[in-house]
Amino acid sequence: MTHSIAILGASGYTGAELVRLISTHPDLTIAALSADRKAGMAMGDVFPFLRHLDLPVLQRIEEIDFAGIDLVFCALPHATSQKVIKGLPSDLKVIDLSADFRLRDAAAYEKWYGKPHDARDLQAEAVYGLTEFYRDEIRGARLVAGTGCNAATGQYGLVPLLKAGVIDPDEIIINLVTGVSGAGRSLKEHLLHAELSEGANPYGIGGTHRHLGEFDQEFSRIVGRPVSVQFTPHLAPMNRGILATIYVKGVGADIHATLAAAYADEPFVQVLPFGAAPSTHDVRGSNFVHIGVAADRQGGRAQVFVALDNLTKGSSGQALQNANLMLGMPETTGLMLAPLYP
Amino acid sequence: MTHSIAILGASGYTGAELVRLISTHPDLTIAALSADRKAGMAMGDVFPFLRHLDLPVLQRIEEIDFAGIDLVFCALPHATSQKVIKGLPSDLKVIDLSADFRLRDAAAYEKWYGKPHDARDLQAEAVYGLTEFYRDEIRGARLVAGTGCNAATGQYGLVPLLKAGVIDPDEIIINLVTGVSGAGRSLKEHLLHAELSEGANPYGIGGTHRHLGEFDQEFSRIVGRPVSVQFTPHLAPMNRGILATIYVKGVGADIHATLAAAYADEPFVQVLPFGAAPSTHDVRGSNFVHIGVAADRQGGRAQVFVALDNLTKGSSGQALQNANLMLGMPETTGLMLAPLYP
Amino acid sequence: MTHSIAILGASGYTGAELVRLISTHPDLTIAALSADRKAGMAMGDVFPFLRHLDLPVLQRIEEIDFAGIDLVFCALPHATSQKVIKGLPSDLKVIDLSADFRLRDAAAYEKWYGKPHDARDLQAEAVYGLTEFYRDEIRGARLVAGTGCNAATGQYGLVPLLKAGVIDPDEIIINLVTGVSGAGRSLKEHLLHAELSEGANPYGIGGTHRHLGEFDQEFSRIVGRPVSVQFTPHLAPMNRGILATIYVKGVGADIHATLAAAYADEPFVQVLPFGAAPSTHDVRGSNFVHIGVAADRQGGRAQVFVALDNLTKGSSGQALQNANLMLGMPETTGLMLAPLYP
Amino acid sequence: MTHSIAILGASGYTGAELVRLISTHPDLTIAALSADRKAGMAMGDVFPFLRHLDLPVLQRIEEIDFAGIDLVFCALPHATSQKVIKGLPSDLKVIDLSADFRLRDAAAYEKWYGKPHDARDLQAEAVYGLTEFYRDEIRGARLVAGTGCNAATGQYGLVPLLKAGVIDPDEIIINLVTGVSGAGRSLKEHLLHAELSEGANPYGIGGTHRHLGEFDQEFSRIVGRPVSVQFTPHLAPMNRGILATIYVKGVGADIHATLAAAYADEPFVQVLPFGAAPSTHDVRGSNFVHIGVAADRQGGRAQVFVALDNLTKGSSGQALQNANLMLGMPETTGLMLAPLYP
Repeated sequence: MTHSIAILGASGYTGAELVRLISTHPDLTIAALSADRKAGMAMGDVFPFLRHLDLPVLQRIEEIDFAGIDLVFCALPHATSQKVIKGLPSDLKVIDLSADFRLRDAAAYEKWYGKPHDARDLQAEAVYGLTEFYRDEIRGARLVAGTGCNAATGQYGLVPLLKAGVIDPDEIIINLVTGVSGAGRSLKEHLLHAELSEGANPYGIGGTHRHLGEFDQEFSRIVGRPVSVQFTPHLAPMNRGILATIYVKGVGADIHATLAAAYADEPFVQVLPFGAAPSTHDVRGSNFVHIGVAADRQGGRAQVFVALDNLTKGSSGQALQNANLMLGMPETTGLMLAPLYP
Repeated sequence: MTHSIAILGASGYTGAELVRLISTHPDLTIAALSADRKAGMAMGDVFPFLRHLDLPVLQRIEEIDFAGIDLVFCALPHATSQKVIKGLPSDLKVIDLSADFRLRDAAAYEKWYGKPHDARDLQAEAVYGLTEFYRDEIRGARLVAGTGCNAATGQYGLVPLLKAGVIDPDEIIINLVTGVSGAGRSLKEHLLHAELSEGANPYGIGGTHRHLGEFDQEFSRIVGRPVSVQFTPHLAPMNRGILATIYVKGVGADIHATLAAAYADEPFVQVLPFGAAPSTHDVRGSNFVHIGVAADRQGGRAQVFVALDNLTKGSSGQALQNANLMLGMPETTGLMLAPLYP
Repeated sequence: MTHSIAILGASGYTGAELVRLISTHPDLTIAALSADRKAGMAMGDVFPFLRHLDLPVLQRIEEIDFAGIDLVFCALPHATSQKVIKGLPSDLKVIDLSADFRLRDAAAYEKWYGKPHDARDLQAEAVYGLTEFYRDEIRGARLVAGTGCNAATGQYGLVPLLKAGVIDPDEIIINLVTGVSGAGRSLKEHLLHAELSEGANPYGIGGTHRHLGEFDQEFSRIVGRPVSVQFTPHLAPMNRGILATIYVKGVGADIHATLAAAYADEPFVQVLPFGAAPSTHDVRGSNFVHIGVAADRQGGRAQVFVALDNLTKGSSGQALQNANLMLGMPETTGLMLAPLYP
Repeated sequence: MTHSIAILGASGYTGAELVRLISTHPDLTIAALSADRKAGMAMGDVFPFLRHLDLPVLQRIEEIDFAGIDLVFCALPHATSQKVIKGLPSDLKVIDLSADFRLRDAAAYEKWYGKPHDARDLQAEAVYGLTEFYRDEIRGARLVAGTGCNAATGQYGLVPLLKAGVIDPDEIIINLVTGVSGAGRSLKEHLLHAELSEGANPYGIGGTHRHLGEFDQEFSRIVGRPVSVQFTPHLAPMNRGILATIYVKGVGADIHATLAAAYADEPFVQVLPFGAAPSTHDVRGSNFVHIGVAADRQGGRAQVFVALDNLTKGSSGQALQNANLMLGMPETTGLMLAPLYP
């Protein structure tokens, strides 16, 4: 049976990635695409790589008839998203890819995003969308919040370890190298090819990056008391991919065994042999996560490495995985595309 | 109904690209993979991006039982390929991705490849694998020769024009920018990241590139007398993609109309609006070809632009398209994956 | 003896490149830097790579005292430049890096730039700044127009050939691959890393690029009648560098001999051995030009290849070379920096 | 007064970088260049970017007459270097760029390099070449050991802090992103453009990278007891540049003040304002080091960021800085070239 979906905010990278993935999904039909400033344009003119597809013309959100639509992907900017979702039919299934519903706590939202939330009841209702850890809740949810791509990457390396208690929760450092598409299709000087290629730099330093709000929320929930990690993202000259290098205190072999066991039955998460290092090259364009573990030469310390594609597993692929669950389909439907290499 | 295939030479980029594409093909099963020097290894160790797949262990060719295999993709090096194919069961369907069977003429082969052919009868039997122009022959062929990736790109822009007689066959210049994966996974100094990134250079200059043999063969066949083009390839810092800029003498509007008509029903070839330029970005990782035409400010001159992915439409995607035909399946089966962008 | 210079428009790439080059020039002192929107900022805050230098704070142009200044480099946007230069002291030496004074003819300017010129007398006075061909005029000039970077690249390959009459002026095709810094530090979607890396595309197709105005002007002047070339630029994922591949009708050996003779005494132009191809990698960050020639397999046709760095020899290095002449210094002063490789 | 130097191993990247820097050095003359396998070739044929220079033909080491040579740069592979230097005239000044003389202790050398040292007396004599910390010893040394490029980067961030005692020596994590030229011009699969561009990956994980030997040696010396750090390098798709992100326990403001004071008079080391992050883009091709400090949101923790160019300050620029000292010239001679940006 085919389900009808709409994508709001289809002119950005996560919107386009959704279209790419859904274009070969056997049971989803794209019924509507919105893009306010580009309303009236063909999607193939906004993104010529999609021109072989027969897609609805871009509309303004208010022009969309949601009557026959089963699920909406909302790929709008932060803050805009909460306003739009508040106005959608209240029985419509929604997956939000913005940051608006990731934090459950009103104060935490205000702290990290600098303003009160506009849809507090929805904020409370939303399920955090990291499929492997919230699968059951997602299956029954009406509103799912897609996670931060950096936040997802760190959590894949840490959640099973914190649950199992095999690392010290107070000594966690998440160092992260990320590709540029995570910043979206926005016109900022530091995102120009001439500024960004051929070099690397940290940003959001000193514990100021908003995805820390998600780490705090999820890790504290597991441990049962406030947990606060260090987190430093770096921008590298690559379009897709996030590599987290996580420094922990714990026994390397235990850590590896814990992760291997936790993900043994997961279709998208691959734990490499102990001592092997993953690479973002090996997951590009796919919904797969590669995880490696190394024991440090200093006993009692280890590194956990996590690689995923920020636009796929970190965003639109994750959203589609959740949509499959919410619509009663096998979780992997349309998502087993192999990575693109080289 | 599912068909069994084998891939000989699976440790190179075209072999890995075949595995990538076939991994989501609904009707093909990979029964055997060969790689002489890596025999005994798992494919996922040679190419970690494929580690989520359940694939046969790499074997030596002589270890493969071809009894239950319906079709073989031969992704071996030039010259090796002809020796190996000569030794395969004579009723086995074969698609060769090397240069060994692209030229039908014994003297032409010797001229461009510097040695006599080792399998002259097979050379005569082989069908040239540019699907859009040899579809009927391919459907009934036993041995199909995959084309040169540069040669394919140039032909998509020129074959309909030469057939229609709308350009001067003696005034054709094919200027080409190509990505690095076309050179394969070979250890050559000029293919190192440090040598190749951040710059561009021509190679095979003065009319020495072997793909000229294919242009000569195919264009002369169409025109009915020897046709000789200029062709200069350039290496640019990108992994996938070929962009041909073809300078011709003819009327721009006629040229555009001719190409638009020729490809109107082709599932993989997109002719852009007159005056629009294609980009390799928009076809990466896909089997699509984008073609653009511009009339020059000087009347009677025009440029034709062709973009495709050398590993997909220029090689392994083309091979799979041909395999679909040879095995009686719809030509597009498993090949409608959208490009990866960005 | 030290000369004082000012740079107007110092917050763009050509302005920054001038500062880079002048920072190790033995006889030039930077007395003033302007940048309207960034007035008041330190240059090291706009361009942190210059933070080791002791530079004047950025000013608005009207705040600069031109009394003690010997020469002004004007790196302002097109159209702005002509207005500003008109207002400068009339005895001040000026090198303009914009397009405003490249075309001598009022009608030609209006045709290519879409509006009448605002400073027609200055337009008539300005000397075209391609040093190797206008050296004597530049030495005595008050106002020199820096050339287009693409226009310079093509001319290095063609001017001596047209002067010597060894090629057919009516059969010239200039195909060009260019790096992204030529487009400046402007916020345009297609200049984003995510849009531009890993692919190539033509632009300004069909004979619409403004640098054609310079080709027309200079080539027609040499030949003594209107000469009209084909010219197609392509964008490749590299920050610096232009590679021109020029298709001509003529005898390869004669062409090589003509270029070798023409540039035998030039300090910055290197003609490679006959049949060798240059690379933009080998000139990056320097004022050198590398030129190669190949005879095509078809007699009477040849290719000329020219590589240079658009920001150095194509713009700011050229400007400094001219400034050296205008101020009575040896032409190579401060410009013999070797390229950066890799 | 001009000094004559020789470069042994001139066909690698560090050798070529030495030639680049020395080509505009006012007081050094290149008297001899060696490259065993390329003996007889012109340097401009091995590295066309140097073809404008008048350089000695490449020789075999045994063909070089060291009589008139004041100093030798030895840019040979590890292990080869110690054998060659042992055979040089015993009064010749030598700067070795290999790893052979970085570790003073025989056992430490054997531990990290897997074999006993072949020149133990020279090992004892060699001065560690990190100029800012060994300036006086270098001035009087005969044999100076160039440091590891990663080791240098980490030390610039940590040495003043360990000397001042403002951080906990037992809680240091050095996370590092490095460009590809650090691996040299060697033909390894993972250094190919197709394998390395567009992604990132850790290597030498778990505390196995040889530069740890240098960290152990230098940090233990300062602290007066064994100090053992964590260190994980990552490969990113850039040719030049190292970015170290160092996680320490200490007070951010104290750390910044300590570094600012330590480097206040250093010509090449720039400490950015507190809270500002450096970028490898801003030091490329130069001998400058940029250092930033951020206090973490968790009190008592901080990050130190260090950016330098591995081929310049991390290797050949450092060597030239030391040569200036050893030959009695101002330390900055020929080294004040601004970075190349973009």
